[in-house]
Amino acid sequence: MPSARLAHARPLDLRNGRIELAFGAGGRAMAQLITELFARAFANDWLARGDDGAVLPAPGPGERLVMATDAHVVSPLFFRGGDIGSLSVHGTVNDLAVMGARPLYLAASFILEEGFPLADLARIVDSMAAAARAAGVAVVTGDTKVVEQGKGDGVFITTTGIGALPAGRDPGGAQARPGDVVLLSGRIGDHGMAIMAQRESLAFDAEIVSDSAPLNGLVEALYAAVPAAAIRVLRDPTRGGLATTLNEIATQSGVGMTLEEAAIPVAPQVHAACELLGLDPLYVANEGKLVVLCAPAHADAVLAALRAHPLGTEAARIGAATADAQHFVQVRTALGGRRMVDWLAGEQLPRIC
Amino acid sequence: MPSARLAHARPLDLRNGRIELAFGAGGRAMAQLITELFARAFANDWLARGDDGAVLPAPGPGERLVMATDAHVVSPLFFRGGDIGSLSVHGTVNDLAVMGARPLYLAASFILEEGFPLADLARIVDSMAAAARAAGVAVVTGDTKVVEQGKGDGVFITTTGIGALPAGRDPGGAQARPGDVVLLSGRIGDHGMAIMAQRESLAFDAEIVSDSAPLNGLVEALYAAVPAAAIRVLRDPTRGGLATTLNEIATQSGVGMTLEEAAIPVAPQVHAACELLGLDPLYVANEGKLVVLCAPAHADAVLAALRAHPLGTEAARIGAATADAQHFVQVRTALGGRRMVDWLAGEQLPRIC
Repeated sequence: MPSARLAHARPLDLRNGRIELAFGAGGRAMAQLITELFARAFANDWLARGDDGAVLPAPGPGERLVMATDAHVVSPLFFRGGDIGSLSVHGTVNDLAVMGARPLYLAASFILEEGFPLADLARIVDSMAAAARAAGVAVVTGDTKVVEQGKGDGVFITTTGIGALPAGRDPGGAQARPGDVVLLSGRIGDHGMAIMAQRESLAFDAEIVSDSAPLNGLVEALYAAVPAAAIRVLRDPTRGGLATTLNEIATQSGVGMTLEEAAIPVAPQVHAACELLGLDPLYVANEGKLVVLCAPAHADAVLAALRAHPLGTEAARIGAATADAQHFVQVRTALGGRRMVDWLAGEQLPRIC
Repeated sequence: MPSARLAHARPLDLRNGRIELAFGAGGRAMAQLITELFARAFANDWLARGDDGAVLPAPGPGERLVMATDAHVVSPLFFRGGDIGSLSVHGTVNDLAVMGARPLYLAASFILEEGFPLADLARIVDSMAAAARAAGVAVVTGDTKVVEQGKGDGVFITTTGIGALPAGRDPGGAQARPGDVVLLSGRIGDHGMAIMAQRESLAFDAEIVSDSAPLNGLVEALYAAVPAAAIRVLRDPTRGGLATTLNEIATQSGVGMTLEEAAIPVAPQVHAACELLGLDPLYVANEGKLVVLCAPAHADAVLAALRAHPLGTEAARIGAATADAQHFVQVRTALGGRRMVDWLAGEQLPRIC
């Protein structure tokens, strides 16, 4: 809502100012925050209109809508490889991408704590805008609320996305069949351990960088390489890690899984940090990795397509779905033994995303 | 994600249990919360699928999409006339409705504070589900995060909605023209003063009930009564109240406005509570009121349509848009004087929605 009258007000102090309750009150201060920060960073006609929502073209003929939402409460707000702004774009873009959809539009809702530095907010919003541009999505509408100091924690961001699902694409957690090949786009545990290393001030701090990235390009590369029906399941193994994601799929599809531990890529510094903290990388969150279950006849083509993409150079075939009435996920260890990999129980890494 | 294995776990204690960090961890506890609380209350096939998003039919031919989002941080969580659950449905349904859209789908994102009683969460989720059913929308996807005690405040809910905008409907804050008639669907200030009365334990407490309600039925009644082009602007005067909403419209459309104070309905107990607290009802939030600016030739038909609907029985014609290069909103007082009604400055009622 750009305004002649608002132009007379003193501009926001984006260097030294802080969030006040008035920024969430619906009045002049909120209008300034929207105009001088959000609408400028996300620059598009939908936001510039200043209405209560965005009017968007419907998807193409034969396409269905996909909708996904994610709240982001990551702590710390800034970490190696990203921040809550870029993460909040990647989180929802990836939820749409693993549904097989082309992400189009994002809505962003901010819950700000009174006293939060405007400079930090501006940095987060700029990062969000850059991540949205890189992923090819527009932030078309938003909302801002402010809570009193001590009733929030800096900034929480909920992003909700709309994507278009082309005809013929129907990946889903319930589509896996015994014999399907399980592929992984790269090494696991980077995001979770980047956050942990920074929180705990570990010496590994400098070496571990979050993998936070938008997966929609990688997903499009897969659909360009193999028939859509060959792609049974797509998932990004976030909270709960690879182990929990595979258990979810096993349960939804009514299959078991057998994985080869030696085939699952883990960076040496992530492995070391996990050992130090007593964590299993299989349960550590990722924010830029893709799990694919595909028909066995197309597994080589899927692997080649993953490896040909910058986000999948370390992709690997890590196992297969099996017929198992109990839906167990098992790992064959390097030494030839087998161990069960259950759902994550309890909480090992709060506020990882 | 209903699961044979999850069925073996002890069910959630929805009477005496409390939110633990594990409920946001992506593992078994979160799956239980989704299955036993959210999916059960919002019962639909999209949620039951347990995927990362919902696949939805696109709107009908010629229809555009509308997207709107709202974070809800209201305090207290339960108030006369509603709670954060019903409010979070009405807030986003109304944002879609005032864009002229038929609300279809909602996404719900929860940020929960560790230690929050599960019984309160269940009550909120049930209220949300009932409000969604009453408004004719489905909660198709969601997300849950948990923050440590002292880093949140019970529960925050962001709802994001998708609506379908029929061809020919194009209301917007920038569409008002000098001469347009300003109508209001009923008395103002009920929501804000219900919250304030409860917070301050005023004697009016029992008498003031929030007007929180879904406006999509009322909007459809208007479009059934007059040509779509006659409806220039629709808005729900929430944060900042009627005064701020009309200033926004004046600024967006480049017009002035003149209102008749005596024509603006205010309940006597709201008037009394406002006097006691030194508030102006024009700036107090509403959650179930509609502002309409329409072409003068159709104002009588709009008023009749409003009054024929249960949510508009006290509807009134309250003023008109004027040609004014300064975009001032003015009120003619009962005594014949005029006063300027500016944007809300500062914050009078934090966390009203």
